[in-house]
Amino acid sequence: MQYFDNDYMEGAHPRILQRLMETNLEKTTGYGTDDYCASARKKILDACGCPEGEVYFLVGGTQTNATVIDGVLRSWQGVVAADTGHIAVHEAGAIEFGGHKVLTLPHKDGKLTAQALKAYLSTYWGDATHEHMVEPGMVYISHPTELGTLYTKAELEGLHQICQEYHLPLFVDGARLGYGLVAPGTDVTLEVLAQNCDVFYIGGTKVGALFGEAVVVPRKGLVSHFFSLIKQHGALLAKGRLLGLQFDTLFTDGLYWEISRNAIAMAQKLKEGFRAKGYPFYFESPTNQQFFLMEDSKLAELSKVVSCSFWEKVDATHTAVRFCTSWATKEEDVDALLALI
Amino acid sequence: MQYFDNDYMEGAHPRILQRLMETNLEKTTGYGTDDYCASARKKILDACGCPEGEVYFLVGGTQTNATVIDGVLRSWQGVVAADTGHIAVHEAGAIEFGGHKVLTLPHKDGKLTAQALKAYLSTYWGDATHEHMVEPGMVYISHPTELGTLYTKAELEGLHQICQEYHLPLFVDGARLGYGLVAPGTDVTLEVLAQNCDVFYIGGTKVGALFGEAVVVPRKGLVSHFFSLIKQHGALLAKGRLLGLQFDTLFTDGLYWEISRNAIAMAQKLKEGFRAKGYPFYFESPTNQQFFLMEDSKLAELSKVVSCSFWEKVDATHTAVRFCTSWATKEEDVDALLALI
Amino acid sequence: MQYFDNDYMEGAHPRILQRLMETNLEKTTGYGTDDYCASARKKILDACGCPEGEVYFLVGGTQTNATVIDGVLRSWQGVVAADTGHIAVHEAGAIEFGGHKVLTLPHKDGKLTAQALKAYLSTYWGDATHEHMVEPGMVYISHPTELGTLYTKAELEGLHQICQEYHLPLFVDGARLGYGLVAPGTDVTLEVLAQNCDVFYIGGTKVGALFGEAVVVPRKGLVSHFFSLIKQHGALLAKGRLLGLQFDTLFTDGLYWEISRNAIAMAQKLKEGFRAKGYPFYFESPTNQQFFLMEDSKLAELSKVVSCSFWEKVDATHTAVRFCTSWATKEEDVDALLALI
Amino acid sequence: MQYFDNDYMEGAHPRILQRLMETNLEKTTGYGTDDYCASARKKILDACGCPEGEVYFLVGGTQTNATVIDGVLRSWQGVVAADTGHIAVHEAGAIEFGGHKVLTLPHKDGKLTAQALKAYLSTYWGDATHEHMVEPGMVYISHPTELGTLYTKAELEGLHQICQEYHLPLFVDGARLGYGLVAPGTDVTLEVLAQNCDVFYIGGTKVGALFGEAVVVPRKGLVSHFFSLIKQHGALLAKGRLLGLQFDTLFTDGLYWEISRNAIAMAQKLKEGFRAKGYPFYFESPTNQQFFLMEDSKLAELSKVVSCSFWEKVDATHTAVRFCTSWATKEEDVDALLALI
Repeated sequence: MQYFDNDYMEGAHPRILQRLMETNLEKTTGYGTDDYCASARKKILDACGCPEGEVYFLVGGTQTNATVIDGVLRSWQGVVAADTGHIAVHEAGAIEFGGHKVLTLPHKDGKLTAQALKAYLSTYWGDATHEHMVEPGMVYISHPTELGTLYTKAELEGLHQICQEYHLPLFVDGARLGYGLVAPGTDVTLEVLAQNCDVFYIGGTKVGALFGEAVVVPRKGLVSHFFSLIKQHGALLAKGRLLGLQFDTLFTDGLYWEISRNAIAMAQKLKEGFRAKGYPFYFESPTNQQFFLMEDSKLAELSKVVSCSFWEKVDATHTAVRFCTSWATKEEDVDALLALI
Repeated sequence: MQYFDNDYMEGAHPRILQRLMETNLEKTTGYGTDDYCASARKKILDACGCPEGEVYFLVGGTQTNATVIDGVLRSWQGVVAADTGHIAVHEAGAIEFGGHKVLTLPHKDGKLTAQALKAYLSTYWGDATHEHMVEPGMVYISHPTELGTLYTKAELEGLHQICQEYHLPLFVDGARLGYGLVAPGTDVTLEVLAQNCDVFYIGGTKVGALFGEAVVVPRKGLVSHFFSLIKQHGALLAKGRLLGLQFDTLFTDGLYWEISRNAIAMAQKLKEGFRAKGYPFYFESPTNQQFFLMEDSKLAELSKVVSCSFWEKVDATHTAVRFCTSWATKEEDVDALLALI
Repeated sequence: MQYFDNDYMEGAHPRILQRLMETNLEKTTGYGTDDYCASARKKILDACGCPEGEVYFLVGGTQTNATVIDGVLRSWQGVVAADTGHIAVHEAGAIEFGGHKVLTLPHKDGKLTAQALKAYLSTYWGDATHEHMVEPGMVYISHPTELGTLYTKAELEGLHQICQEYHLPLFVDGARLGYGLVAPGTDVTLEVLAQNCDVFYIGGTKVGALFGEAVVVPRKGLVSHFFSLIKQHGALLAKGRLLGLQFDTLFTDGLYWEISRNAIAMAQKLKEGFRAKGYPFYFESPTNQQFFLMEDSKLAELSKVVSCSFWEKVDATHTAVRFCTSWATKEEDVDALLALI
Repeated sequence: MQYFDNDYMEGAHPRILQRLMETNLEKTTGYGTDDYCASARKKILDACGCPEGEVYFLVGGTQTNATVIDGVLRSWQGVVAADTGHIAVHEAGAIEFGGHKVLTLPHKDGKLTAQALKAYLSTYWGDATHEHMVEPGMVYISHPTELGTLYTKAELEGLHQICQEYHLPLFVDGARLGYGLVAPGTDVTLEVLAQNCDVFYIGGTKVGALFGEAVVVPRKGLVSHFFSLIKQHGALLAKGRLLGLQFDTLFTDGLYWEISRNAIAMAQKLKEGFRAKGYPFYFESPTNQQFFLMEDSKLAELSKVVSCSFWEKVDATHTAVRFCTSWATKEEDVDALLALI
């Protein structure tokens, strides 16, 4: 059986486990106040080109989204997102649990467009009854998106400019950030991101760590009392150093980039293999998630030897499916997969 | 100046004020435990043909929607509504404030269709990841809708059947219910409503009362601890009898129907007048809200002598506007309006 | 039967009903944007000596407390109150529903003392783990308190000074404010209040109005987007002028003071009557709530002809009860009561 | 420097890390649906003597408390706890963030007493205004408590009986459960716990794991849709097997008990050492938290070489401090500590 269901099927990069072993019986203070966290923070901020910024470590994506959004928004505000956004669809209402509406706009290739955002904001503020509506208080995008697509630098700048015009913090969900940063043709770097948004996170769970997301606030002071908010959201890890150690390792000797590149190389190979066999693409993605359209009969047969993700039913006889590669995907497994399809 | 902005510009029907005067210095217990509330409850349940049901009085529409929805849903659930639904658009996030997502489906003439609802529910429950999504826990519709349109009895039955199949309470926002019940051609009565939904309310604020909404639960027991929930939502009126007295008056000698008919008669006259003058309709409505498409220049001129509601900008030179009649609209005012357009 | 259960058993002062009658069929815009509200706001601000302040009208006490507190606090903050405070005990969790903890301190005669507040704040900020605790974000007191007692001007100043030192807005629940302002011996006036707190409200429901509470923000800008918050809390009255008209009447020709004085005069008479008959006082109150200790057998007998409020069971054979007077209490009813005890 | 600050200063028991290494590159499905979680669940339920029960794995204590409490309570309900309870003091308002009040009762040695609980419930339900108050919907206790103390089997049975009488689920926070189960003189076992409460958790974070808490529902069905609730609370670990593997290891060959016994043995030695040197105890604790009263001058001196937890300021010249041992504490460190004091 070959597994390409998602990008969190394995544990962590061996260097990370090695590091946890080496430091296991050291005694450190809790909640991220230790030296490993401090070191990881510094390396991350340096990599982002914003040494004066802030970094916070949380455990998982949904809790990070909920905590950041609750930290930024005031009661009367909501968060703008593409209707395909993770916070709008797949977080079991975590944002609404915090009291905030997700204000969805139609996506284009999984992305929020500057045009749609501008039109929405202009309509909202032009509506005489807007005080009876939820005020857009921040903007959320994912990079890569839930459909594997990427914003260009120009698109990010375009969104950021509108956000600034309307005084809206721009928040980038980077659960799969590594895979976006090393994708072929992208002009978005960590520095570009740090310059063009107000808060973002660098995903660890899906990119080499056991778990963990590093929230970066490039320009200090966006969120007040973030420590207490993290605690209130149940997102504060007692042994905070576990997060520090993992990110410190990922940001040492370029490991984060190196392992991200593996996922992309494997995705490219997988993509070409499927293309060669004539499978139509459901979305065109340059990152580690690849989407294909399959006849149901073919899919049923394939499912006996290959495991992938159901995406959606397209019509009576076709289904869209997703194949994921990751930092841990081996070339031999892709070869085996391609032999099976 | 002629005012047709909305249906809550005047106070209350004179019989209601008269009743408040007569009883003003009586002493009664608070919070709806008085005899006037008991009498109003009985009259309402009789009119609905469900004498074993429950009635609760609240002050306004948004608070009623929020309280009922919070009372019905569990934490992991959301409420399904048309994307034009009042709870989705114009309640400043009151539903999300209570922790629940409004799960919107595209409307058809302001209505939720059985087809769209069935397709959504079937997709939701067929999705392998549905436990990561907000579970649909109830269905909300407005009757009349926000666009002035009405469900037919068959449409209500269709929605109700799907709701029952999926064990979803059906909730009808009747902020303008009277105007729907007496509209020409409708086959929906209070009894039909009571049989085809699980909780609904009879609007007072927009239909003859100073304020007040009467929540009807046709089959007892849908919501537990409703009294405490009303209190927790800040929706419990200390002098609860003010609500009882108003609804008791509205449900005595058919007053609620009589005054609703006035609004409809005036709306019909207004509608025919606009039609005769060649104004295109923006929506086709059989109730007290009438929507027209106007050239901006014409609208600017008209606005000097007539006040109506901005609905939305349609294109660079046209705007949709809404004219409302109500229980209090006088024929002479409609005549004056028609003379001005 | 004589009723002294509470101070909201009757309707409204006749001048208010008269005013509602006279204006009933006028057409005004909604949500408090009308001229009556504007007039009432001006009269209130003038009476408070803070013409640059803000006034908002809400319907009831619990909703006012919840809305103001949610408006002032950020997610990680709670509100400090005496353990007898209405928000801590009798609002069915409305404050927690909004996500905030009520941080209670032991009361003294129903009052929060400067000493207890200072000790608590100093301990909180001195605790190394305070970021794991709920941060005190504002202070709530009631005047008169739930036990009928009053703060002196010096006590208010003392609390206010500590609040300022710790940058905490001081919020005064004035549901029964009128009865406090005219009580014998008080040196607290509206101006004193406006100078010594950051937001307070002037109760209408219990002091002559059908319903309504007027929130005063003496120094503009404490709460952002209050209109949307009121809407989100379901506390926005469509026919907002009903609130404006009532407060405009109460603040015309000193009516608010005149009717408050009646309640106090009646309470004093009642108090002396009980004292003369040897009933022990349970609390010593200078306002319209009077608390007595009764033998259960005596209370059972009395309950056949007199209705009052159960306060609490004191021991196996004694109960504390509350008798309330109000703006509407008639001397003949007090005489009748005293003849019965 | 000797560190006795808390019981989460080290990583995990070496057998756990070993297990993570061995399985690191296996591919498993996410969110706790893997075989390691299944195995751990079975071992835990067997150890608890309730093979038909349910087990859920979460990451940390605050998030577990918040998720369980939100899962059990309905909107109008609160959770009863001792005023020293972790949820009442040290969770930054996580329970209130979910909309629920923590209803505190005075503790006795850190414990909730059956007597106080019964008196409170009886008063609550006897109060005619209880519908205006937060209804007690469940009871929370910690075992060991925040003061290191333990309930006896008889005390647990007493609380459980009252809870059953009032239909209140009893929830036991077992963040330090192992240390309680092996303490000298206790008659509380996992089976006793499973029989006498409705939901509890077995702490991993403080007892040998990197992180993780195992929630046990002895009698299936207490909480509906727990999976979605965990997701909504941001408490669902993508690589759920990390939790399964850790608890599977802890519940293999009695490791959980073995390492818990080390903490207790070290705590006893430490305790006797302090006693021998004449330090007064601040609380009498049979578990891994030991509390002493120190002169501030002595503490200042000691702090140069020993790190412990500030507990509270007792008077102008004395401070209470806490020393913690854990599964990882070495005898040589205790010896070194005792040589220093």
